[in-house]
Order: sequence, then C-alpha cells, then structure tokens
Amino acid sequence: MSSEQWTNELDRELPRPLHAQISSAFRDRIAGGEWPDHYRLKPEPDLADEMGVSRGTLRRAITTLIAEGLLVQVRGRGTFVTARAIEPSIAQRLTSLSEDFESQGVRWETDVLESIVGPVPRPIASLLGISVEQPALRLERVRRTDAGPVVYLVNYVRTDIAVGIEHVDFSEHSLFASLEQNLGLTIESGRRTFSAVTASAEVAAALDVEVGAPTQYIEQITYLADGRSIEYSDIWIRTDRLRVTSLLSRR
Amino acid sequence: MSSEQWTNELDRELPRPLHAQISSAFRDRIAGGEWPDHYRLKPEPDLADEMGVSRGTLRRAITTLIAEGLLVQVRGRGTFVTARAIEPSIAQRLTSLSEDFESQGVRWETDVLESIVGPVPRPIASLLGISVEQPALRLERVRRTDAGPVVYLVNYVRTDIAVGIEHVDFSEHSLFASLEQNLGLTIESGRRTFSAVTASAEVAAALDVEVGAPTQYIEQITYLADGRSIEYSDIWIRTDRLRVTSLLSRR
Repeated sequence: MSSEQWTNELDRELPRPLHAQISSAFRDRIAGGEWPDHYRLKPEPDLADEMGVSRGTLRRAITTLIAEGLLVQVRGRGTFVTARAIEPSIAQRLTSLSEDFESQGVRWETDVLESIVGPVPRPIASLLGISVEQPALRLERVRRTDAGPVVYLVNYVRTDIAVGIEHVDFSEHSLFASLEQNLGLTIESGRRTFSAVTASAEVAAALDVEVGAPTQYIEQITYLADGRSIEYSDIWIRTDRLRVTSLLSRR
Repeated sequence: MSSEQWTNELDRELPRPLHAQISSAFRDRIAGGEWPDHYRLKPEPDLADEMGVSRGTLRRAITTLIAEGLLVQVRGRGTFVTARAIEPSIAQRLTSLSEDFESQGVRWETDVLESIVGPVPRPIASLLGISVEQPALRLERVRRTDAGPVVYLVNYVRTDIAVGIEHVDFSEHSLFASLEQNLGLTIESGRRTFSAVTASAEVAAALDVEVGAPTQYIEQITYLADGRSIEYSDIWIRTDRLRVTSLLSRR
C-alpha cells in the first residue's frame, strides 16, 4: 500500500474530521475485500507514519471500527478484520455450539422442531450400542441468530442412561448442560467428522436455503467416562453464517 | 441383536468352516450399513457367547476381517468397523495432509498442475502481508490415492521468505517439509476455516466430480515463529474419499 493512496483519500481541507475519514477509508477496504476476514493491520506506528496522521487520530478511527464490530484487537497479536461468520472451534474442543456462541458473545435462539422418544434408525442404534427395539430421544432443533437460521441439529440420546431427558425444555436449555448439570452424567470424549453435502428438502427448509445448497455436515458421537455412547447427532450448518475454525500450533 | 439371528446364519452342518461363515456374516452387516463406520463390536466373550461359538473361532473370523481392512482393533478400546474414507485430524493439529496420509498408511501421489512465481490476488496478498506488486509462488496440486483424486490444493507461498522454494519438485516433496527441512523455517501456528462449497469447473476437473458437487473447502493461513505469514491456501476435498475427523476430550 503506497502512502500516495492514503493521500488521495484523506483531505485535511474537508470539514469532516480526519479520524472519520480514516474510518471510512478502512470501512471501504473491508467492504471491498481488499482487507479480507482476519487481515492483520500494520502496527499502529507504521500505519500512522504511512498515512501521515498522528497515532491518536489513527487510534480514534480504529476505536470506532472496533465499536462497529469491523475490527478486533487481540492482545499481543495486533488488530484484525473481524470475520463475517461465527467461528466456533468445535473441531478442536468438545464444546457444544451453544457454549461457543456464549463465549463469543453471539445471541441465539433455539427452535425445537421435535422432541420425542421413539425408534432409532438401525445404523444409529448400532453406534449408540442399543438394539433397534430400544427407543431413544430424537431431538430436532434449529439454532438461529439475528441473521436467521444457522444450524440444524438432529440428536439421538439414550434415554436408558439419560433418564427423563425428554422432559427438558430444549428451547431454554442446551443438551450438554442438561446431561451434565441436571443428570450428573460425565461427558468424556467425542468424535466429530466433517463433510460437505447438498441440502435435502428437510435441511433446506430448516436452514432457509435452496434445496441442493452446499452445507457443512457434521456427524457427532459422544461418549461418557465409562465408555458408553450417550448421544449421536447429525448437524447441518449454513457456512455463510458459521464457519468451523481451528487455531493450531505446529508443536 | 438376538442369538436366533446368528443361528440362522451359522450352520455347523455346512462344509464351509464356521470362522468363514462368521466372517461372511460380519461382512454382510458392514456392507449393509447395519454396522456403520466406527461401529464398536461387543466384547469378544459376549459376542462369542451370543453366537454360540468359541472365542478362538470368533477371533479367527475377526483376524480375517482385520487383514481385509474392514475391522480395526484399538488397544484398550475394542474392535471397530473401519471408516471408508481417510480421516485426517487436520482440524486438531497443524499437520499437513501428506503427514496424516503417511501416519495412516495411505499411499498417495501428487500431481503438480502449476508451480509458478507471479502476482497474487489482492485479498490473499493482504493476508500474506505483502503488496500486490510483490510476486509469490502459486502452487497448484492434486493429491490422489488408489481411489483417485482426493484433494485439490492451491497454495501461495512468500518467496521473499522461502527463497528458492519454486525450485522444489513438489511431485516428490511436500510443502511443509520443504519449508522446514530444506529452508530451515519454523512453522509455528496456523488457522484453518472449514466450509462447504459447490465445485466450480476448475475444482470439478481437478477432483473428477460434477460441477456443482458439494466439496469440503478449507482456507488455511500459516505463520512462522516471528509472526509473519508464510503461506495461504485454498483446499477443496472430495468428502466421499476424505472426511476431516476430530477425536475430542471434554476436559
């Protein structure tokens, strides 16, 4: 980025304050994709130099954009362009989506489409370690943020272990919290497998996308400390609104 | 599973050895999906009892299926149905796909479609922390196993840091190994973001799928120990052949 470019955008003759002009210039770069999601801004002293403005003016512009949610500061790492999608780390930790939403300050609601104890498809019964004759809870939910539906979840929960789980109001309570806090079960480990699928009519209706739209599909199986599987889920995600993200260390 | 079911399948009057009949019965359950990927068999003593066979006979059948790759034994956890897809843990660790293939005993080849130093699209230049005038290596590869193409990778590598990287024969050498071992760079951390996209004409041709087929898309950015980004990648995966898998602990 050459400093000439900034000179064209910033005009000290204008009545509009310089910090507001800087905010606008940054906003344009973010909107135009020149500064993509996760772009790291240059260190403030370098950037202020390059733009020919004081650090105080620059910082005021940055503060505005942080307040608008377009930039985020990470202690010791710098200032970054905020990702447009929610970015849970569910491929790295056995947290539930609701726990990730909570920790990222995302507001969400849960629509319970179905919560019923009944038969389980054979492959899922096998993975849960139960016979096909044995009923389990089928819990069908949509999680939505202010943007709209984000994730469609179908869980099968062993009611012989999670006794009474079918009486929980899942529009108010999350599944993991109910298993752990209300029923005192110890969730120990899980497997999550990620693939891409096109939306069926059912998935499309739940996520408000076209039939055939690509969705992030996750198969999940959760185990208790004693090795028994407690829960199996099929999860479909709108990847325009939520992208599973892992921050990884090499060593 | 009732023991009557096994009685119908196993016939001591037949000339075919009992262990081979057991292998066939298991093979049918795996092929039919009754025992899905990752299904855990009952403990051998219970299963032998249920089938009315000796543990030795059961073990011989299981050994055959392990040799065929249909079952796998995990020490201390039991015997499982092998997953049909490769299952790298690249959402949990900053390993490269080739490292995961290696550790899982998968044979693969790499086709280099392009390896050229030139201009970089603006958003990628921004993420790499270089100006759009500064060239970088564009490396375009397809990784294939015996089944066919599995993953299509387009990497952009900073040639001002990885000096001479463009002379590596990437059909023989992997990118991470070249950066670390040949150039002595220290890869420290990375970010991987997972989403689902439909295959463009280019992706479809590389992966041998229909245009519009759902593919697992990964955006990757890799950082050195000094905080500079060394590499950005776009990665498209055929999820019928490879499914990113995380084995997670709750605590």
